[in-house]
Amino acid sequence: MSPSPAARLALQIEFIVECDRLKEIFRQTLNTRSRRPENDAEHSWAFCLCAIVLAEHANVPHLDLLRVLKMGLIHDLVEIDAGDTFAYDTAAMVGQHDREARAADRIFGLLPADQSAEFRSLWDEFEAHATPEAKFAHACDRFQPMLLNTRTEGGSWRTHAVTHDRALVRAAPIAEGSAALATAIETLLREAVAAGHLAPASPTA
Amino acid sequence: MSPSPAARLALQIEFIVECDRLKEIFRQTLNTRSRRPENDAEHSWAFCLCAIVLAEHANVPHLDLLRVLKMGLIHDLVEIDAGDTFAYDTAAMVGQHDREARAADRIFGLLPADQSAEFRSLWDEFEAHATPEAKFAHACDRFQPMLLNTRTEGGSWRTHAVTHDRALVRAAPIAEGSAALATAIETLLREAVAAGHLAPASPTA
Repeated sequence: MSPSPAARLALQIEFIVECDRLKEIFRQTLNTRSRRPENDAEHSWAFCLCAIVLAEHANVPHLDLLRVLKMGLIHDLVEIDAGDTFAYDTAAMVGQHDREARAADRIFGLLPADQSAEFRSLWDEFEAHATPEAKFAHACDRFQPMLLNTRTEGGSWRTHAVTHDRALVRAAPIAEGSAALATAIETLLREAVAAGHLAPASPTA
Repeated sequence: MSPSPAARLALQIEFIVECDRLKEIFRQTLNTRSRRPENDAEHSWAFCLCAIVLAEHANVPHLDLLRVLKMGLIHDLVEIDAGDTFAYDTAAMVGQHDREARAADRIFGLLPADQSAEFRSLWDEFEAHATPEAKFAHACDRFQPMLLNTRTEGGSWRTHAVTHDRALVRAAPIAEGSAALATAIETLLREAVAAGHLAPASPTA
């Protein structure tokens, strides 16, 4: 027997309250005005704003933008349990997907079964980087913090001594979702190096 | 002559950077875990999360959810210039729409002309409370902070001595978008009164 609308709503409200914890997961990126660290809720909003503003630059002309936005809204919820893994911390990335998959089981599992399956499927799609929507979603996910770094005199690149070559590796998936955004970010990275906000590639790189 | 894709992208990037200021507009509502004030970027994300989780409870069966989400992502950008007007501050509400309309002119005006017109039209639609999408968007916009108040022992209701009758007036538009959410919030308000987190209606009310 499927739960009543009121019973479903009770589950959904508890899920929404649990998701409020996303506001307390802080990233390495700095916000442009206050220069305080961005949190995952702010990032998720900014990701979605990028998606609606920049959709015309996607490699594929007719994206399902609603699915991109749903991915953007939920893609970092797993960090409520698994924490934020800094994009350049390759040691911390070991086991990251397994930790996040367990978090997805728990957090999406708070929802009614059909919706739990829908949200898990969206998260799996995002993680698989395979569909045009997932590729454009990843382009937004990588473009947005890099743009913040370029407007905070290097932001987390400076804090963590990230070099140009490593930033280029990190930016590479942007091209799969949007060649135009990839070109734009490459220009911004070169400008950041010229301005002294991003260290040049190390000679041994 | 319409601008090139690269020229459009340059405008869009400046718009996105300007919108980063939304993270510094603080509201009266408290986040559930840290109990620090919520900011407009966090609220916009939470509004959109409510929309995708709760869409089945809308009064209208086939909402254009993409349009609801676009409204949610941009509905508070005008507060970058106009500031947040506290929901129960009726004096501050005088002239609010005019201030916000000037802000909309400036902020959406940063975008390429076609996109500026699209975003302004979305904001006007939200402000007019007339379409099913705008009504459901307002239901999310009101439901989300009230839910936070119920999970922070009254939150901004206690800070500002808001009474049950005033909260009910504030909640009234929820019913236009979702009768189910309106019923749920009425129950939560009664529970908040019973718990001492929301003052009962004053005898003169």
